[in-house]
Amino acid sequence: MTEFPGPHPHIAALEPYVPGEQPHGDGWVKMNTNEFPYPAAAGVVEAIRREAADSIRIYPDPVCTLLRETLAEHHGVEPSRILVGNGSDEILRMLFHAFVGQGRRVAIVRPTYTLFEVLAGMFAANIQNHELAPEHERLPESLFDEKWDACFLPLPNPPLGSVFPDGDLDRLVGTGRMIILDGAYQDFSEYADPLERHADRPNVVFTRTFSKSYGLAGLRVGYGIAVAGVITDLHRIRDSYNVNRVSQAAALAALEASGYYRERCDQIMKSRRQLAQDLTALGFRVHPGQANFLFARHPRAEIIFRELKGQKILVRYFDQAGLKDGVRITIGGPKENQVLVNALKSMDLNGY
Amino acid sequence: MTEFPGPHPHIAALEPYVPGEQPHGDGWVKMNTNEFPYPAAAGVVEAIRREAADSIRIYPDPVCTLLRETLAEHHGVEPSRILVGNGSDEILRMLFHAFVGQGRRVAIVRPTYTLFEVLAGMFAANIQNHELAPEHERLPESLFDEKWDACFLPLPNPPLGSVFPDGDLDRLVGTGRMIILDGAYQDFSEYADPLERHADRPNVVFTRTFSKSYGLAGLRVGYGIAVAGVITDLHRIRDSYNVNRVSQAAALAALEASGYYRERCDQIMKSRRQLAQDLTALGFRVHPGQANFLFARHPRAEIIFRELKGQKILVRYFDQAGLKDGVRITIGGPKENQVLVNALKSMDLNGY
Repeated sequence: MTEFPGPHPHIAALEPYVPGEQPHGDGWVKMNTNEFPYPAAAGVVEAIRREAADSIRIYPDPVCTLLRETLAEHHGVEPSRILVGNGSDEILRMLFHAFVGQGRRVAIVRPTYTLFEVLAGMFAANIQNHELAPEHERLPESLFDEKWDACFLPLPNPPLGSVFPDGDLDRLVGTGRMIILDGAYQDFSEYADPLERHADRPNVVFTRTFSKSYGLAGLRVGYGIAVAGVITDLHRIRDSYNVNRVSQAAALAALEASGYYRERCDQIMKSRRQLAQDLTALGFRVHPGQANFLFARHPRAEIIFRELKGQKILVRYFDQAGLKDGVRITIGGPKENQVLVNALKSMDLNGY
Repeated sequence: MTEFPGPHPHIAALEPYVPGEQPHGDGWVKMNTNEFPYPAAAGVVEAIRREAADSIRIYPDPVCTLLRETLAEHHGVEPSRILVGNGSDEILRMLFHAFVGQGRRVAIVRPTYTLFEVLAGMFAANIQNHELAPEHERLPESLFDEKWDACFLPLPNPPLGSVFPDGDLDRLVGTGRMIILDGAYQDFSEYADPLERHADRPNVVFTRTFSKSYGLAGLRVGYGIAVAGVITDLHRIRDSYNVNRVSQAAALAALEASGYYRERCDQIMKSRRQLAQDLTALGFRVHPGQANFLFARHPRAEIIFRELKGQKILVRYFDQAGLKDGVRITIGGPKENQVLVNALKSMDLNGY
């Protein structure tokens, strides 16, 4: 493709991450990329408008001081233990860059967030897949048998939204190896936040995002929490001004409106229970997921995905082993959920 | 610092890039980080305000379609030849990641943008410094004598704002090796854009930013232009949603107001000539720089820097060989430039 000298072989061989479709045009019911279905808090809208000012010509605070201080208070940790990123994907990339990379072994469960495999390729790390049992009830025993340097585990874990018993997690953390717990969906979980249980473990890194439970996917803000030494190492490889002014201000305003967002998350959890019932009644086998989506299995999953898309209802279909018999459905607002259920009801689900 | 497994040695050894100071509080005359001294175009402010809407909960366009199309038209290249980044620093990082990295040799002139050395360290590349002659009139001959894989060269080159003869640049490009020309300050130059001369060379990558001549430092937008194959390789290692919605919209609006920004850049170039005269009259030796800053040498440079800071006027001082006898001054609006000149006049510059 290129010469002079051309990309590194491990880069040239890379299959990029494929994000969910962002359709153009109006009229779509978008239940494919786990976005927040409710409007932003008034304070967030106001904060963005306030940034439309002379100050945009000035570089942002390179270390997000105010946002970090507020996050620190929110989570009960020191500000020096927090690093803010251009989405939590940036934090995850930096973790691979600094701590995983060439020649090191990174363990992931399968299925999981598909970005991890891309990041491993990007930094020439050796990836180790540990297959989850069909219902994802426990962490795979192989994870405890084999040698690896770091383990990336989302909790809840997509695309099923699984959580695992505290005992399994304690055992993983107890290995003393580097454990990255991605809590992108934690705010939708009925289970306790692992951050509360393991906050002070020097080998554990927690990543979080404003994209899901704070509805700021369009603005790209995420963060990591770890011991200060890990944060210091990540700062070394951070783009100098990685989080822009507007996003810093909006995230701060979102945190200040956390009561509003908590209520909406509670509503999403309630809608999740309702939607799970409705889907079950329609013949789907629904995993008891703890995120803002449900994985619903059906023998005709791929056809259902396409037929819904024909009706401008987007859900996510994964053409990969163990997932081909299901669709991942983002929980919408009550109205969107009803549109989906009505569309499914109007299909002859067993008669294709 | 950390174990389990701890950062890679080349990361642990890294001295992070030190950005110019962003002072807190009001009343500062900020001439230290080469920001744009004029207000944003009305359309830019309006574009940001328009994004304060329901759509912020939706992920941004991952490949900045509209912005790329408009940039493509602006530069007369195909959209597939453009990659937009979270600042041009992100593009530069991606270039190091994909094309330079471990075991490869990267050539830079010295002095230059100090980020290159940090990026080389970040990706374990071998950096090769080529000292510029005192007045930076020509590219160093050593650059043509030695072997390297890629060369990063800003044009104009900070912190003096130097440009080099076309013949030198032709010779560099003619090596066929990978040449990255960072045009962050091109819009302030009286010399022709190297993009016009070398746009179709498969070994040349051009980087640009909205931070300087479009006054969007606070929003983080930059881009790279290269042959489509290079852009494809960079996409493989791009964070999925690297440019947020507001920044995409603001950059697009800035491009649409390019007449406004061109006029302000012309004013900055005019002010640069005036300021150079004023500084020369005050006893400084001023390099004929082509950027939105001037490097002004004076035996008392460090003291002048500190004394100005005491008056809440920030300029940049580099405590490094070849630069200790000067300060880098961002061209402000006419009023700020006058404040600086008055402050300097009130000092007894020779009488310390």
